[in-house]
Amino acid sequence: MDIDLPEIVAEVTAQFQRYEKALVSNDVAVLGELFRNDARTLRYGISENLYGHGEISAFRAARPPAGLMRRTARTVISTYGRDTAVASTLFYRDSAPGRVGRQMQTWVRFPEGWRIVAAHVSVIDEPQGPPA
Amino acid sequence: MDIDLPEIVAEVTAQFQRYEKALVSNDVAVLGELFRNDARTLRYGISENLYGHGEISAFRAARPPAGLMRRTARTVISTYGRDTAVASTLFYRDSAPGRVGRQMQTWVRFPEGWRIVAAHVSVIDEPQGPPA
Repeated sequence: MDIDLPEIVAEVTAQFQRYEKALVSNDVAVLGELFRNDARTLRYGISENLYGHGEISAFRAARPPAGLMRRTARTVISTYGRDTAVASTLFYRDSAPGRVGRQMQTWVRFPEGWRIVAAHVSVIDEPQGPPA
Repeated sequence: MDIDLPEIVAEVTAQFQRYEKALVSNDVAVLGELFRNDARTLRYGISENLYGHGEISAFRAARPPAGLMRRTARTVISTYGRDTAVASTLFYRDSAPGRVGRQMQTWVRFPEGWRIVAAHVSVIDEPQGPPA
């Protein structure tokens, strides 16, 4: 299996960046597009667990659009073969000093393009101790 | 792409169950085996962010073995093709009433077998409102 093929990493990175832009601008259409439209699609959010594209879309539609801006750090995109990738990033919001967000997404390539099939977002106190 | 092929789901389910048994019994050898031995392997834990198999192994070795028992719920294992899967589960510990854990793992098949390439574990207050 070819890992981190440059052209595959570039493809997923482009979609990851599209997702990030849509998130901070609350572009619900793009967010809905990039999560696979399927009952299996799963999103563990900061304070909710959403099963299937329908629950995820309803959450997006109801979400207040304010305060979504964030700064990302230590983004890691790893690809396995030509059709699978994991995109992981830390994020910080000015509204939450001392806290760090973690976002992890599993992307799979379908005939319609790269889609997120599972995602998990959580926020914790910034770990102390030696820098990770 | 074939999704949720029964024989693939069965393979991943067996490894997922092996992992769960190793986790609650603190079988560090099996836990170390099932995370891919690679610098890309990433684990966002309940209160730590671990980059690479080395950091993950060091965390396991230092972890107190007590209080790991847990009850899982709503486990979902979805497979994409023959070499990619996502395993997600909620979990509860008696020591943390009113809280729910979320564990999400991306599994990839390598020549040496199915391995976790990325995992994210977090604990939140049990969501209120309509049952998810």
